[in-house]
Amino acid sequence: MSNLKFSANINTFNACADRYVLSGYGERQDSDALIRAATQVPGLTGVELVGMWHVNDDNVEKLRRQLADVGLAVTCITPDIWASSKWGWGSFASPDAKIRRDAVREVQKSMEWAKQMDCDVVDLWFGQDGYDYPLQGDYQTAWERIIAGTIECADYLPDIKLVVEYKPKEPRTHCYIGTVGKTLLLLERVARPNVRAMIDVGHSLEAYEDTAESAALLDYFGKKLYYMHFNDNWRMWDDDMTAGSVHTIELLELLYWLDRIGYNGWYALDIFPYRENGLRAAAESIQWIQGLHNLLDKIGRENIAAAIAQGDAMQSSSLVRQALLGN
Amino acid sequence: MSNLKFSANINTFNACADRYVLSGYGERQDSDALIRAATQVPGLTGVELVGMWHVNDDNVEKLRRQLADVGLAVTCITPDIWASSKWGWGSFASPDAKIRRDAVREVQKSMEWAKQMDCDVVDLWFGQDGYDYPLQGDYQTAWERIIAGTIECADYLPDIKLVVEYKPKEPRTHCYIGTVGKTLLLLERVARPNVRAMIDVGHSLEAYEDTAESAALLDYFGKKLYYMHFNDNWRMWDDDMTAGSVHTIELLELLYWLDRIGYNGWYALDIFPYRENGLRAAAESIQWIQGLHNLLDKIGRENIAAAIAQGDAMQSSSLVRQALLGN
Amino acid sequence: MSNLKFSANINTFNACADRYVLSGYGERQDSDALIRAATQVPGLTGVELVGMWHVNDDNVEKLRRQLADVGLAVTCITPDIWASSKWGWGSFASPDAKIRRDAVREVQKSMEWAKQMDCDVVDLWFGQDGYDYPLQGDYQTAWERIIAGTIECADYLPDIKLVVEYKPKEPRTHCYIGTVGKTLLLLERVARPNVRAMIDVGHSLEAYEDTAESAALLDYFGKKLYYMHFNDNWRMWDDDMTAGSVHTIELLELLYWLDRIGYNGWYALDIFPYRENGLRAAAESIQWIQGLHNLLDKIGRENIAAAIAQGDAMQSSSLVRQALLGN
Amino acid sequence: MSNLKFSANINTFNACADRYVLSGYGERQDSDALIRAATQVPGLTGVELVGMWHVNDDNVEKLRRQLADVGLAVTCITPDIWASSKWGWGSFASPDAKIRRDAVREVQKSMEWAKQMDCDVVDLWFGQDGYDYPLQGDYQTAWERIIAGTIECADYLPDIKLVVEYKPKEPRTHCYIGTVGKTLLLLERVARPNVRAMIDVGHSLEAYEDTAESAALLDYFGKKLYYMHFNDNWRMWDDDMTAGSVHTIELLELLYWLDRIGYNGWYALDIFPYRENGLRAAAESIQWIQGLHNLLDKIGRENIAAAIAQGDAMQSSSLVRQALLGN
Repeated sequence: MSNLKFSANINTFNACADRYVLSGYGERQDSDALIRAATQVPGLTGVELVGMWHVNDDNVEKLRRQLADVGLAVTCITPDIWASSKWGWGSFASPDAKIRRDAVREVQKSMEWAKQMDCDVVDLWFGQDGYDYPLQGDYQTAWERIIAGTIECADYLPDIKLVVEYKPKEPRTHCYIGTVGKTLLLLERVARPNVRAMIDVGHSLEAYEDTAESAALLDYFGKKLYYMHFNDNWRMWDDDMTAGSVHTIELLELLYWLDRIGYNGWYALDIFPYRENGLRAAAESIQWIQGLHNLLDKIGRENIAAAIAQGDAMQSSSLVRQALLGN
Repeated sequence: MSNLKFSANINTFNACADRYVLSGYGERQDSDALIRAATQVPGLTGVELVGMWHVNDDNVEKLRRQLADVGLAVTCITPDIWASSKWGWGSFASPDAKIRRDAVREVQKSMEWAKQMDCDVVDLWFGQDGYDYPLQGDYQTAWERIIAGTIECADYLPDIKLVVEYKPKEPRTHCYIGTVGKTLLLLERVARPNVRAMIDVGHSLEAYEDTAESAALLDYFGKKLYYMHFNDNWRMWDDDMTAGSVHTIELLELLYWLDRIGYNGWYALDIFPYRENGLRAAAESIQWIQGLHNLLDKIGRENIAAAIAQGDAMQSSSLVRQALLGN
Repeated sequence: MSNLKFSANINTFNACADRYVLSGYGERQDSDALIRAATQVPGLTGVELVGMWHVNDDNVEKLRRQLADVGLAVTCITPDIWASSKWGWGSFASPDAKIRRDAVREVQKSMEWAKQMDCDVVDLWFGQDGYDYPLQGDYQTAWERIIAGTIECADYLPDIKLVVEYKPKEPRTHCYIGTVGKTLLLLERVARPNVRAMIDVGHSLEAYEDTAESAALLDYFGKKLYYMHFNDNWRMWDDDMTAGSVHTIELLELLYWLDRIGYNGWYALDIFPYRENGLRAAAESIQWIQGLHNLLDKIGRENIAAAIAQGDAMQSSSLVRQALLGN
Repeated sequence: MSNLKFSANINTFNACADRYVLSGYGERQDSDALIRAATQVPGLTGVELVGMWHVNDDNVEKLRRQLADVGLAVTCITPDIWASSKWGWGSFASPDAKIRRDAVREVQKSMEWAKQMDCDVVDLWFGQDGYDYPLQGDYQTAWERIIAGTIECADYLPDIKLVVEYKPKEPRTHCYIGTVGKTLLLLERVARPNVRAMIDVGHSLEAYEDTAESAALLDYFGKKLYYMHFNDNWRMWDDDMTAGSVHTIELLELLYWLDRIGYNGWYALDIFPYRENGLRAAAESIQWIQGLHNLLDKIGRENIAAAIAQGDAMQSSSLVRQALLGN
């Protein structure tokens, strides 16, 4: 039985807000409380941080020691280039050159913090780079700018991996880097070995992707998959529910393909437990992932491979059913 | 362990066609072959027939005996008011009074055949009653006509149940009787005890319904759920895949609620195994449904009820996970 | 040329926030500034208020005079039963009896304020009454409670209209009162003459409804349409964009049917101009609605009626095209 | 005022079938009748043909003369590698090497016919190359095969352009070449100058793409856009409705960007007028496209460019509104 490495953004344990309940559905916690919470989740050995929210020049060394003391690795730092009105009209693709420079600098700072914290992953999520209305987006210029900014970041610290996190919509109605295909195009054009991709399961689902297929593609086009965000949703929106809560079999298929392509990175949670207890939500997510992963041993990966090689959906169905239901 | 009663449309075992492969993905079979196939599916004890396709005035008695001889009950007859160009612009809601009369008569004939075959269910699917373009539908007149036609059928043979089968789209881009809410409105207006509803799982999914909720609502508004069609899809379209192939947990929730509301009708398959062997597709569907139903015993219905009463999603997740994965 | 009456929630002119930019994309304004802004939008003669946010027992008379002085009618008051964590697990359908009582009381207070401000419409939006996960919702109990609470409110002040505002999702992944069909079912069961419905165009679009059809249905089942919220979206989510920005022809069809069913209520805007200037966004919305409404005169309502009576989509297309494009 | 070149598949004028009405909603016509119909549509100067259905080794020269005589250019030939059960489990990506060879050969034959008919475009639509169920697709092998087959075709006749037509689903629930991003990836890997792309507007819409953005991207990554299919839908499915019937403003934006990127290919219709008269459906489509294109002159392309450069959605809204509605 294999050991997966689990991480979670420490905000998992904070109050979640939406556009109606701006003050959040629970109590806001400070970073110390969030880290304490993270230590209480069985199986969790890593955390993600958001640049400026949790880590900054002043506290990076203190935070590093604090996390080391409780045995939590930093698995990813996400620069904040999307959570204030400053970034509302774009970050890397902003029409304002000053904003673009600031965004690049913000990412570079997160890269430095990552390095100081023995973390080699920085998340590049261009949430605000997109458009809302028809006849609004300056599509080609936007790509030009996103490519240029990404190269500038990549070259700044070549030993830190930038993992592009695609998402089709929200907070813009259309985000430029919205699908696995566009992500790979960006990577081909950027052409830097330290620029890779991550899959956020929910983002992939809302793009009508089969997440396993997206993982296989990122692997096929140059071993580009370097990080994973797990969560679930109802396929229309990034509901950020607990992993495995809706799409059981697709999650199983994803776990199978992650093994098959030799993915050995973190299995990180990116959930918004608005009304749920964060500890339970994280624990449930981890246990669903681990339980389904164990099921692969029970089924036999070679049996799945054989069914897939023949495209025999009924055989796959039968294998999964017998393992899950025993009938 | 409870015994569910399984049925399937005998077309399950025929070649399926789509708008590209009009001649079908396999070999066309005659009714004798389809019935033979039905007898070979473990657990299948009933079949659905389509009026005029399989049953008509000339063969009804012969077919009744043929099915009785092999131990298959007729669980539902579906009048064909949607499969030829005659019905292309509507059946019950057609602008043409002659077509409307013919459609009503077609349903009444299926009611007679049902009665002769000891079947008490006739499926009322208004697939062609809808519209394709904006500024095309005559919405109020259409409802007027659908209500009138349904009453006329209901009163024709009060001991036969008409089960309204809602579907949001296809073959029209918008069908009038498209959701569980509209179905119940129709039933309230028709106000005949023999007019009930069925849920086709895939139709419900493509309407962004949680099928369990729809079943609970049909029960809440006067015990209206009288028949069930099982299949699965990717939520955007009526893909008519095998039951349980995508939405495992939602299917489990549906089976729980069917028990809870005392549903004791047939568990019928309505799948289109375009490229799959019909026998295997039916067998897989039945085993998924039965296997998930057995899981309810293992979990304990009272435990689910307690979690639901508190709206405790993480408790439900935990119960299901432990039963499915044992971790 | 007809005069439509336009209104807008005064929050239209405030900074909009989403779950990422919680502090909003612009500057937060006080009520005085919002009212001043409303007076600057050409054609705007009414405003909506949110209970407790804008109006309360202490300021109701002052606010009434303030609005009267600038010539703005209060067209609708929306009780806040969804914007703090208190309501996070439900309002009318909460498992907690105390919360249910508070929610009903909150609505009743808004009804009183409405009466004091010569407004006869209170918006009943059950945003938090729903569920997020499978095996979480207690569907029948929830409906029981929503029906009971609505009756209690309706009977409190029979001369105030309660308009049910349905929405399929957000802030819950599934809201109980989610479609036009479910809304009418609720109204039938509540059976109070002062309980009616509104259509929020965007909510209807994300439910895969044709908004014109929904308006026609609300009329057909007892003249239930009493209020309208205009906005637009990309059909998957409640993007709350300016009216007419995406679905031009469907908006035209809706305006046609509103006339046809004799709707003479307010044409209210419910938009979230996150990154747009609120004044311009409101002005654009009003001009699109008014401009498309004027087009109905140009086309001739009797010509549209004739095309619809025949279900002739190409004739409708031709009429609209010639009026819009002149070719 | 610019002259666009319009084409249509001659099947536009034939009876359309769906999976329910397999015999079609109208009368089946022979090729002579279809060509006669095409000559009757104002503005139509080109036609598309399907290999083997309309053109074959025996009739190619006769058909060439027949079309020349009536003044119709052949704008595209689409090989049939998707319309019989032979191709049901895949064409270029089939697990069966013999089928793959046959598919490649089928495309090459269409390339020859195209050359003989002075047509330089062959449509490469991999409709059957995909999967239906989870744990069915052999993703990496499939891409390997599609790339190899495409190269083999491209090298066969370098002066014929192969235009890849992406589509997210149907006839498979998931097609491998499903989005604009994946199309460009395929093109980068194939790396042949005669392999380009087309956009089918409806396919793009059902992939939650803004079609204008997709056109801009295809241009940005090496001037790859070489052909266009126009139609419309309700965004969830390839409804193949007449152009402009639902998404007016997005069509306008697309036409703007086609001009901006210097697209000078055909404006071809790919519609399924199931219940509409094909002649009227084609004529409406052409007039909507031409009328909206004329509107660009009225608005002024430089004004649109200025609004886009600033990302000013309200300015774009205002420009379009004034041109369309005059208010």
